[in-house]
Amino acid sequence: MKSLLKGNALIAQSGGCTAVINQSLVGAAMASRASNAIPKVFGSRNGIEGILKDSLVNLSASDVELLRKIAKTPSAALGSSRYKLLPEDGKKIVHHLKKHDIRYLFLIGGNDTANTSLQIAKAARLGDYTLRVVHVPKTIDNDLVETDHCPGYGSVARFAAITTQEAALDTRAMKNVDPIKIIELMGRNSGWIVAASALLKKSPADAPHILLIPEIPFDETAFLKRTEATLQSVGYCIIVISETIRDHAGNRIGRKLGGVTKDPFGHPYVEGASPRLASILEKNLRVRARFDKPGTIQRMSMPYISPVDQKEAYNAGARAVQWALGGMSEVMVGFFRKPGKKYALEYRPVPLAKIPNQERYLPAEFFDAKHSMIKPAFFDYALPLIGAKLPEFPVL
Amino acid sequence: MKSLLKGNALIAQSGGCTAVINQSLVGAAMASRASNAIPKVFGSRNGIEGILKDSLVNLSASDVELLRKIAKTPSAALGSSRYKLLPEDGKKIVHHLKKHDIRYLFLIGGNDTANTSLQIAKAARLGDYTLRVVHVPKTIDNDLVETDHCPGYGSVARFAAITTQEAALDTRAMKNVDPIKIIELMGRNSGWIVAASALLKKSPADAPHILLIPEIPFDETAFLKRTEATLQSVGYCIIVISETIRDHAGNRIGRKLGGVTKDPFGHPYVEGASPRLASILEKNLRVRARFDKPGTIQRMSMPYISPVDQKEAYNAGARAVQWALGGMSEVMVGFFRKPGKKYALEYRPVPLAKIPNQERYLPAEFFDAKHSMIKPAFFDYALPLIGAKLPEFPVL
Repeated sequence: MKSLLKGNALIAQSGGCTAVINQSLVGAAMASRASNAIPKVFGSRNGIEGILKDSLVNLSASDVELLRKIAKTPSAALGSSRYKLLPEDGKKIVHHLKKHDIRYLFLIGGNDTANTSLQIAKAARLGDYTLRVVHVPKTIDNDLVETDHCPGYGSVARFAAITTQEAALDTRAMKNVDPIKIIELMGRNSGWIVAASALLKKSPADAPHILLIPEIPFDETAFLKRTEATLQSVGYCIIVISETIRDHAGNRIGRKLGGVTKDPFGHPYVEGASPRLASILEKNLRVRARFDKPGTIQRMSMPYISPVDQKEAYNAGARAVQWALGGMSEVMVGFFRKPGKKYALEYRPVPLAKIPNQERYLPAEFFDAKHSMIKPAFFDYALPLIGAKLPEFPVL
Repeated sequence: MKSLLKGNALIAQSGGCTAVINQSLVGAAMASRASNAIPKVFGSRNGIEGILKDSLVNLSASDVELLRKIAKTPSAALGSSRYKLLPEDGKKIVHHLKKHDIRYLFLIGGNDTANTSLQIAKAARLGDYTLRVVHVPKTIDNDLVETDHCPGYGSVARFAAITTQEAALDTRAMKNVDPIKIIELMGRNSGWIVAASALLKKSPADAPHILLIPEIPFDETAFLKRTEATLQSVGYCIIVISETIRDHAGNRIGRKLGGVTKDPFGHPYVEGASPRLASILEKNLRVRARFDKPGTIQRMSMPYISPVDQKEAYNAGARAVQWALGGMSEVMVGFFRKPGKKYALEYRPVPLAKIPNQERYLPAEFFDAKHSMIKPAFFDYALPLIGAKLPEFPVL
């Protein structure tokens, strides 16, 4: 173990928000407050922008009861950011860190944020400033490499799994009028969230019936055929898609490619993947297709939160601080699943340099491209992450 | 009290589904089962279509434990319908009712369904067939006349109130990147659901900042001015709209009126109100605008359900049966709020003939058109309907 480094700590939240990113914030803040080596723990407003603008919150002075409530509140309580460091920012940031005697840096974010962490660590080394940087993973997209899963994913997965069954019951009852429903979910370049929408599917006739993910190019002919077959056999069809599905050329579905792209007032026509698929279905199958697009509600909803995800996100924040105090730097808190039937997690440091500019896609082991549906192995992977007390959906 | 009428009962669910329509179904089924005058209670599959097609479920034989679970399940367990009676259907329906010795008819639905109830009652009179018809109100739109509110509204109102705050926290954290969010909710021709999205707003700076409802024609200039002013003063802007907002000529916002209405393959361009508003905002204010459209999830979500709404929906079903057994017919179960500060409800029969072809709009007493926001009286009206245990949204 390295020698004890005394100095203040700084925590920042970055990238898209989640329902549990405040758990990681409070986990890191409480662990910092518990250490004699850290006199003060600061929060940086709006990611790394706060340190550049001297917009800091003294989390050592925050009421513990308030912090406990903040942990259970969705979104980033410190504010978030998509700021990309400029070449000159590294030096500036080190200057500000020095000024506040900050020796511990904890950024909570995805792979872009991991890159920021790495650049700051490098700038500190160049400036001969001792700084320990531990990265706390966070993304609903579940696309970070070198970790079993990411904090934020379990909760959005629970939202996807339950609301898909709920929305499907609506279509089941209204199948004579509105037999097709499209549900559009998030996921950047990967199908992890869409895959989770099928976690409560118990038989082939159960919803969802078709999953479209960004990893598999959209095939209109196969899609229409499968939808029609489902309408024939089940009487209705629930289609869950990622908002970023693409065609074989890599173009987003629903993007206006040509023709009139603006209205007479010059407003551009925005369509999106769901309205485009609805148009295709209505034209070809002559039945009405509706769509639900929960948008940011899917990543902010507290009633659908996964208690497993909450706990792991808190632990990730706390582990980051404990490891930094123990001398580690330039690592990310990685999640490793212990072998065995019962779900159990172990936190292990992963070299931070392995994280940036990498994305983990939904593997073939979990997704059957031919049938546009998840495979059994995905249930084993994802069900433990969404927590217990799952609702039943009885029918008459 | 009229003489005891012995015969079977029939229950059907009709129109758009809600999270509590099964409470009314089970309330009516259990009250029917409790009476010696009703040997059997049937459920009709897919509204009135089930009786025309002899597609009935014997609810007297259903397991009570299953019925209890069904009550807590969203959507219409019997299936729903938007079937409009043909002139010859009245006679046919009476024929089928006779065949099954059905003397009690309970349709659960909105004003279209009330019309169906009335037509069947009339056909029975013409056919000299004694039938008691009591209508059970149901609509998330809260637009039935002659009742304080409608079962289904309290739950969608709770969904709107809480998810708007949750989604707003996301925008608050991401205001440097995505400062504008539009949330598109339902409501047919009235703003009751959109109004509910502001129930947890505590100060002018809190979200939501602008509400657009179908009763007030959309004014682009005023809308842009108000959005810009909110961005200036608050730093972000949450806009909640009904999917059916209209311009001064009564045309739906987002409808393609002219120009190219189809893509090169002949697929019609569907835009919708939110993408249209997002385009208008991005063009004029040069900032990104996102939108969430929870769609049917808003009316199916169980974790956001209002316990008050659940209880009242059950009671409405039970009252309908008790009143019919007592001799009433051609009435709807009306909800009346007792005077006094503490919320208390009384169920009173309302003549059914008053219900069809009427809609109740959000009154000026509840909505300030000039400021696009609810008035204090609306809090008093709607807060008791969404139930207790409302979340807090603390900030750092």
